[in-house]
Amino acid sequence: MTDRESSRTLAHPEPAGIRLEGVLHALSDPVRLSIVRELAGAETGLACSHFPLPVTKSTTTHHFRVLRESGVVRQTYHGTTKLNALRRADLDELFPGLLDSVLTAAAAEAARRQ
Amino acid sequence: MTDRESSRTLAHPEPAGIRLEGVLHALSDPVRLSIVRELAGAETGLACSHFPLPVTKSTTTHHFRVLRESGVVRQTYHGTTKLNALRRADLDELFPGLLDSVLTAAAAEAARRQ
Repeated sequence: MTDRESSRTLAHPEPAGIRLEGVLHALSDPVRLSIVRELAGAETGLACSHFPLPVTKSTTTHHFRVLRESGVVRQTYHGTTKLNALRRADLDELFPGLLDSVLTAAAAEAARRQ
Repeated sequence: MTDRESSRTLAHPEPAGIRLEGVLHALSDPVRLSIVRELAGAETGLACSHFPLPVTKSTTTHHFRVLRESGVVRQTYHGTTKLNALRRADLDELFPGLLDSVLTAAAAEAARRQ
Protein backbone atom coordinates (compact mmCIF):
# COMPACT_ATOMS: atom_id res chain seq x y z
CA MET A 1 0.00 0.00 0.00
CA THR A 2 1.44 3.39 -0.92
CA ASP A 3 1.29 6.37 1.43
CA ARG A 4 -1.18 7.95 -0.89
CA GLU A 5 -3.50 4.95 -0.66
CA SER A 6 -3.07 4.52 3.09
CA SER A 7 -3.94 8.16 3.70
CA ARG A 8 -7.22 7.51 1.93
CA THR A 9 -8.19 4.42 3.86
CA LEU A 10 -10.70 5.18 6.58
CA ALA A 11 -10.78 3.18 9.82
CA HIS A 12 -13.95 1.20 10.49
CA PRO A 13 -14.66 -1.19 13.37
CA GLU A 14 -15.16 -4.84 12.51
CA PRO A 15 -18.66 -6.03 13.43
CA ALA A 16 -17.26 -7.66 16.60
CA GLY A 17 -15.86 -4.27 17.61
CA ILE A 18 -19.16 -2.41 17.31
CA ARG A 19 -20.40 -1.54 20.81
CA LEU A 20 -24.04 -0.96 21.67
CA GLU A 21 -23.16 2.09 23.79
CA GLY A 22 -21.22 3.61 20.90
CA VAL A 23 -24.10 3.08 18.49
CA LEU A 24 -26.62 4.59 20.93
CA HIS A 25 -24.30 7.54 21.49
CA ALA A 26 -23.93 8.05 17.74
CA LEU A 27 -27.72 8.03 17.34
CA SER A 28 -28.36 10.32 20.32
CA ASP A 29 -27.54 13.53 18.44
CA PRO A 30 -30.31 15.11 16.35
CA VAL A 31 -27.99 15.99 13.44
CA ARG A 32 -26.51 12.51 13.32
CA LEU A 33 -29.96 10.97 13.63
CA SER A 34 -31.17 13.04 10.66
CA ILE A 35 -28.19 11.78 8.62
CA VAL A 36 -28.99 8.18 9.54
CA ARG A 37 -32.65 8.64 8.62
CA GLU A 38 -31.68 9.94 5.20
CA LEU A 39 -29.12 7.19 4.62
CA ALA A 40 -31.76 4.61 5.59
CA GLY A 41 -33.94 5.83 2.75
CA ALA A 42 -31.15 6.04 0.18
CA GLU A 43 -30.44 3.30 -2.34
CA THR A 44 -26.85 4.36 -2.92
CA GLY A 45 -24.08 5.90 -0.83
CA LEU A 46 -24.46 9.63 -0.27
CA ALA A 47 -21.71 12.24 -0.20
CA CYS A 48 -21.30 14.28 2.98
CA SER A 49 -22.03 17.36 0.89
CA HIS A 50 -25.44 15.89 0.05
CA PHE A 51 -26.70 16.75 3.52
CA PRO A 52 -27.82 20.35 4.06
CA LEU A 53 -26.90 20.43 7.74
CA PRO A 54 -27.32 23.48 10.00
CA VAL A 55 -23.74 23.17 11.24
CA THR A 56 -20.25 24.11 10.08
CA LYS A 57 -18.25 21.93 7.71
CA SER A 58 -15.91 20.83 10.52
CA THR A 59 -18.86 19.88 12.72
CA THR A 60 -20.31 17.93 9.82
CA THR A 61 -17.01 16.09 9.42
CA HIS A 62 -17.04 15.35 13.16
CA HIS A 63 -20.56 13.92 13.01
CA PHE A 64 -19.66 11.63 10.10
CA ARG A 65 -16.54 10.48 11.94
CA VAL A 66 -18.60 9.59 15.04
CA LEU A 67 -21.01 7.65 12.83
CA ARG A 68 -18.13 5.82 11.10
CA GLU A 69 -16.10 5.05 14.22
CA SER A 70 -19.13 3.73 16.09
CA GLY A 71 -19.90 1.37 13.20
CA VAL A 72 -23.13 3.02 12.10
CA VAL A 73 -21.96 4.11 8.64
CA ARG A 74 -19.33 2.98 6.18
CA GLN A 75 -17.42 5.71 4.37
CA THR A 76 -15.64 4.93 1.12
CA TYR A 77 -13.77 7.17 -1.25
CA HIS A 78 -14.99 7.44 -4.80
CA GLY A 79 -12.45 9.71 -6.44
CA THR A 80 -12.18 12.66 -4.11
CA THR A 81 -15.66 12.20 -2.65
CA LYS A 82 -16.45 10.28 0.54
CA LEU A 83 -19.63 8.29 0.13
CA ASN A 84 -21.63 7.24 3.20
CA ALA A 85 -23.79 4.18 3.59
CA LEU A 86 -25.61 2.77 6.59
CA ARG A 87 -24.14 -0.51 7.89
CA ARG A 88 -27.62 -1.94 8.15
CA ALA A 89 -26.71 -5.61 7.74
CA ASP A 90 -24.03 -5.42 10.43
CA LEU A 91 -26.27 -3.52 12.84
CA ASP A 92 -29.30 -5.76 12.22
CA GLU A 93 -27.23 -8.84 12.90
CA LEU A 94 -25.64 -7.45 16.06
CA PHE A 95 -28.68 -5.64 17.46
CA PRO A 96 -31.85 -7.13 15.93
CA GLY A 97 -34.68 -4.63 15.70
CA LEU A 98 -32.71 -1.75 17.18
CA LEU A 99 -32.12 0.32 14.07
CA ASP A 100 -35.68 -0.16 12.83
CA SER A 101 -37.18 0.86 16.18
CA VAL A 102 -34.97 3.97 16.29
CA LEU A 103 -35.89 4.92 12.71
CA THR A 104 -39.59 4.37 13.42
CA ALA A 105 -39.37 6.41 16.62
CA ALA A 106 -37.46 9.19 14.86
CA ALA A 107 -40.05 9.38 12.09
CA ALA A 108 -42.90 9.46 14.64
CA GLU A 109 -41.16 12.15 16.65
CA ALA A 110 -40.47 14.26 13.56
CA ALA A 111 -44.16 13.98 12.60
CA ARG A 112 -45.27 15.00 16.11
CA ARG A 113 -43.08 18.10 15.97
CA GLN A 114 -44.12 19.35 12.55
CA MET B 1 -47.60 22.30 49.15
CA THR B 2 -45.14 23.12 51.91
CA ASP B 3 -41.50 23.94 51.23
CA ARG B 4 -40.56 20.66 52.79
CA GLU B 5 -42.79 18.75 50.41
CA SER B 6 -41.77 20.78 47.37
CA SER B 7 -38.11 20.15 48.05
CA ARG B 8 -38.83 16.44 47.86
CA THR B 9 -40.69 16.53 44.57
CA LEU B 10 -38.50 15.42 41.69
CA ALA B 11 -38.95 16.83 38.20
CA HIS B 12 -39.97 14.36 35.51
CA PRO B 13 -40.85 15.07 31.89
CA GLU B 14 -44.41 14.40 30.79
CA PRO B 15 -44.58 11.70 28.10
CA ALA B 16 -44.96 14.40 25.42
CA GLY B 17 -41.71 15.94 26.64
CA ILE B 18 -39.66 12.77 26.36
CA ARG B 19 -37.25 13.12 23.41
CA LEU B 20 -35.83 10.20 21.49
CA GLU B 21 -32.36 11.78 21.46
CA GLY B 22 -32.46 12.21 25.23
CA VAL B 23 -33.47 8.59 25.77
CA LEU B 24 -30.73 7.33 23.45
CA HIS B 25 -28.20 9.53 25.21
CA ALA B 26 -29.33 8.22 28.61
CA LEU B 27 -28.93 4.64 27.38
CA SER B 28 -25.55 5.26 25.71
CA ASP B 29 -23.56 5.06 28.95
CA PRO B 30 -22.57 1.58 30.19
CA VAL B 31 -23.29 2.37 33.84
CA ARG B 32 -26.73 3.80 33.04
CA LEU B 33 -27.45 0.89 30.72
CA SER B 34 -26.61 -1.56 33.51
CA ILE B 35 -29.03 0.27 35.82
CA VAL B 36 -31.78 0.11 33.19
CA ARG B 37 -31.18 -3.60 32.63
CA GLU B 38 -31.54 -4.27 36.34
CA LEU B 39 -34.66 -2.11 36.66
CA ALA B 40 -36.18 -3.95 33.69
CA GLY B 41 -35.91 -7.20 35.62
CA ALA B 42 -37.20 -5.79 38.92
CA GLU B 43 -40.78 -6.15 40.04
CA THR B 44 -40.63 -3.19 42.40
CA GLY B 45 -38.82 0.13 42.54
CA LEU B 46 -35.17 -0.13 43.54
CA ALA B 47 -33.22 2.27 45.74
CA CYS B 48 -30.15 3.94 44.23
CA SER B 49 -28.11 2.24 46.96
CA HIS B 50 -29.26 -1.14 45.60
CA PHE B 51 -26.86 -0.78 42.67
CA PRO B 52 -23.23 -1.72 43.35
CA LEU B 53 -21.81 0.69 40.79
CA PRO B 54 -18.07 1.15 40.14
CA VAL B 55 -18.38 4.93 40.45
CA THR B 56 -18.55 7.54 43.21
CA LYS B 57 -21.78 8.42 44.98
CA SER B 58 -21.99 11.78 43.22
CA THR B 59 -21.49 10.12 39.84
CA THR B 60 -24.22 7.64 40.73
CA THR B 61 -26.54 10.52 41.58
CA HIS B 62 -25.68 12.15 38.25
CA HIS B 63 -26.50 8.97 36.33
CA PHE B 64 -29.88 8.62 38.03
CA ARG B 65 -30.63 12.27 37.32
CA VAL B 66 -29.86 11.80 33.60
CA LEU B 67 -32.15 8.76 33.57
CA ARG B 68 -34.92 10.66 35.33
CA GLU B 69 -34.66 13.88 33.32
CA SER B 70 -34.63 12.02 30.01
CA GLY B 71 -37.82 10.18 30.99
CA VAL B 72 -36.28 6.71 31.27
CA VAL B 73 -36.89 6.24 35.00
CA ARG B 74 -39.32 7.58 37.57
CA GLN B 75 -37.88 8.41 40.98
CA THR B 76 -40.17 8.63 43.98
CA TYR B 77 -39.43 9.19 47.61
CA HIS B 78 -40.44 6.54 50.09
CA GLY B 79 -39.45 8.01 53.41
CA THR B 80 -35.87 9.14 52.93
CA THR B 81 -35.16 6.65 50.15
CA LYS B 82 -35.47 7.41 46.45
CA LEU B 83 -36.96 4.45 44.60
CA ASN B 84 -36.35 4.02 40.89
CA ALA B 85 -38.61 2.38 38.35
CA LEU B 86 -38.37 2.10 34.59
CA ARG B 87 -41.03 4.13 32.71
CA ARG B 88 -41.66 1.17 30.48
CA ALA B 89 -45.27 1.96 29.58
CA ASP B 90 -44.43 5.53 28.60
CA LEU B 91 -41.39 4.47 26.58
CA ASP B 92 -43.18 1.58 24.87
CA GLU B 93 -46.00 3.86 23.82
CA LEU B 94 -43.71 6.61 22.54
CA PHE B 95 -41.05 4.41 20.95
CA PRO B 96 -42.52 0.94 20.25
CA GLY B 97 -39.93 -1.80 20.36
CA LEU B 98 -37.03 0.48 21.23
CA LEU B 99 -36.53 -0.43 24.87
CA ASP B 100 -36.91 -4.14 24.21
CA SER B 101 -34.41 -4.08 21.35
CA VAL B 102 -31.91 -2.17 23.50
CA LEU B 103 -32.36 -4.59 26.42
CA THR B 104 -31.99 -7.60 24.11
CA ALA B 105 -28.88 -6.08 22.50
CA ALA B 106 -27.39 -5.25 25.90
CA ALA B 107 -27.94 -8.80 27.15
CA ALA B 108 -26.40 -10.25 23.98
CA GLU B 109 -23.42 -7.93 24.22
CA ALA B 110 -22.89 -8.74 27.90
CA ALA B 111 -22.98 -12.46 27.06
CA ARG B 112 -20.44 -11.99 24.24
CA ARG B 113 -18.05 -10.19 26.55
CA GLN B 114 -18.16 -12.68 29.41
